[in-house]
Amino acid sequence: MAVTAPSLESFKLDEETTMNEKPNFANLNVAALAGGVGGARLAQGLAAILPPERLHIIVNTGDDFEHLGLTICPDLDTVMYTLSGLANPKTGWGIAGDTFTCLEAIQRRGGPGWFNLGDRDLATHILRTQWLHEGQRLTEVTARLATALGVPCALLPMCDTPYQTQVITAAGTLPFQEYFVHQRCRPEVRAFRWEGADVAQPTPEVMAALEQADLVIFCPSNPFVSIAPILNLPGVKEAISRRASVAVSPILGGEAVKGPAAKMFRELGIAPSAVAVAERYAGLLTGFVLDSVDAGLAPAVAALGMATCVMPTLMPGLDERIAVARGVLEFAVAPR
Amino acid sequence: MAVTAPSLESFKLDEETTMNEKPNFANLNVAALAGGVGGARLAQGLAAILPPERLHIIVNTGDDFEHLGLTICPDLDTVMYTLSGLANPKTGWGIAGDTFTCLEAIQRRGGPGWFNLGDRDLATHILRTQWLHEGQRLTEVTARLATALGVPCALLPMCDTPYQTQVITAAGTLPFQEYFVHQRCRPEVRAFRWEGADVAQPTPEVMAALEQADLVIFCPSNPFVSIAPILNLPGVKEAISRRASVAVSPILGGEAVKGPAAKMFRELGIAPSAVAVAERYAGLLTGFVLDSVDAGLAPAVAALGMATCVMPTLMPGLDERIAVARGVLEFAVAPR
Repeated sequence: MAVTAPSLESFKLDEETTMNEKPNFANLNVAALAGGVGGARLAQGLAAILPPERLHIIVNTGDDFEHLGLTICPDLDTVMYTLSGLANPKTGWGIAGDTFTCLEAIQRRGGPGWFNLGDRDLATHILRTQWLHEGQRLTEVTARLATALGVPCALLPMCDTPYQTQVITAAGTLPFQEYFVHQRCRPEVRAFRWEGADVAQPTPEVMAALEQADLVIFCPSNPFVSIAPILNLPGVKEAISRRASVAVSPILGGEAVKGPAAKMFRELGIAPSAVAVAERYAGLLTGFVLDSVDAGLAPAVAALGMATCVMPTLMPGLDERIAVARGVLEFAVAPR
Repeated sequence: MAVTAPSLESFKLDEETTMNEKPNFANLNVAALAGGVGGARLAQGLAAILPPERLHIIVNTGDDFEHLGLTICPDLDTVMYTLSGLANPKTGWGIAGDTFTCLEAIQRRGGPGWFNLGDRDLATHILRTQWLHEGQRLTEVTARLATALGVPCALLPMCDTPYQTQVITAAGTLPFQEYFVHQRCRPEVRAFRWEGADVAQPTPEVMAALEQADLVIFCPSNPFVSIAPILNLPGVKEAISRRASVAVSPILGGEAVKGPAAKMFRELGIAPSAVAVAERYAGLLTGFVLDSVDAGLAPAVAALGMATCVMPTLMPGLDERIAVARGVLEFAVAPR
């Protein structure tokens, strides 16, 4: 791990930590911004290290949509299932070992099959929809579900009102899941816009988590459709700008580990790279983590005014997730 | 089979039929009123005999309710699953071989488990709810589902608007499913009332089926909570009174084959019997079918002004269902 620019604030660590070589993070308050798979993986690593009450995962809700009358929150669910150990590691969505009996029956009855709904996963959507219908906020509903499934830390939807990412493409303007799942990211992206942005506010829980955070971590999530919706909410950027903040690049060697981020960069006329990601956060972030394959890009990122850190960031298994989380925290708290 | 009173009209049968000993029923238009299991069984027998376009099954919707945000129509589903060959013969509800993965996951997440929802069954409720939400009438939604599942004849909900049976009991007024499933029919029944009765109308399809029927059959369904809600709809009794109509007693030897009908009679201060059932339909029905165990009650029923017919009416399997259906039709068309 190579720290190349000493611009991070130092955090108040407990005495024991500051006197030891290897810091523990028992007193570090962290707010992590997350989208889907990459965000979920780093969040799981952080949850394995940090005390549950000190970690708040703030999750994109721009992907949320209504399908078959159910309110589906793909990013919240990916993070929730990952943190509860239920996630299907092969797909990036859904629950490991889930069955699809209901979905098959839906199709037999003439209903749509393009969005995968496992039988166990469906329980999440049915209860969420019902509890929202009863008047609970998405924040409360998410907490009930996450607690029931054994998620240790706070899982916070970025806002409680609809804030739907619309992908403006050569084939028309598509709600995100229509673009992402139904059309498999094929249409060429021209821009994004958000339905509900005029009224959406970050939740009080999100603002409190940001205000009390010693460190804000941007998980390796899509900058356009996972991180941007969170940053766009009124007051979020301002709150982050008052704290130390570190991003982990979702682009490695010019490609995304998962998902359409690199394709989106290209279609928007930007060469996908860790630098291109860092440029989107320039002026806001205090630190940036690049994957080892992108070590050569560290100076270009540092030139944007961020501390940089190079480490392996692929996180297929829990061991790697913990290692990356620890690396990010150590980078963030390292005295400059 | 003993016909003891010759008061039925004769029907217009095709020439071939009237010239043969054994009538076929190719030209007989039948409307059958049905509730749950008993109704579904006789309906299946009728569907095996009659041309699909001549059979209309009119189903009680008084049991319908909202659960977990889903519109559930227990009687419609019992009849639909029975007619499509999917019904679970052991339970009287749901689909044979269905799994309960989603329901178990709902309970794990803190949701209710008192109402059984199989994974395949759930597909019916999800699509029905969604299609209703899109503005389709329950009649249209039911037709889509029934067609997809291979039901040959018309399956008609009695009305398209909510018309919910409320059971007034010693333990308070309970929506029917709360009484029937959640409280397992334990509270003592004092009376019934119907939510939505002030605005409910039989559907145009129901009225057309009754108007074109040569014969109306009251399936062996609960007179209080399956048949009464249909009869209570404006114009239904009048339409039936202009046609030949035959009921099959749901009470055999003083007990119901299934369900709380006998218990309800007792709690309302009436000794449960085929005669007690017939009394409820006196002045409306032209014929009444008693089970062989109740042969001795035929004169008492005949004294109410109905033709009577005694035959075995238990219908555990398809053979018996067809036999009872044929017996009922032969009784109804027999020249007096």
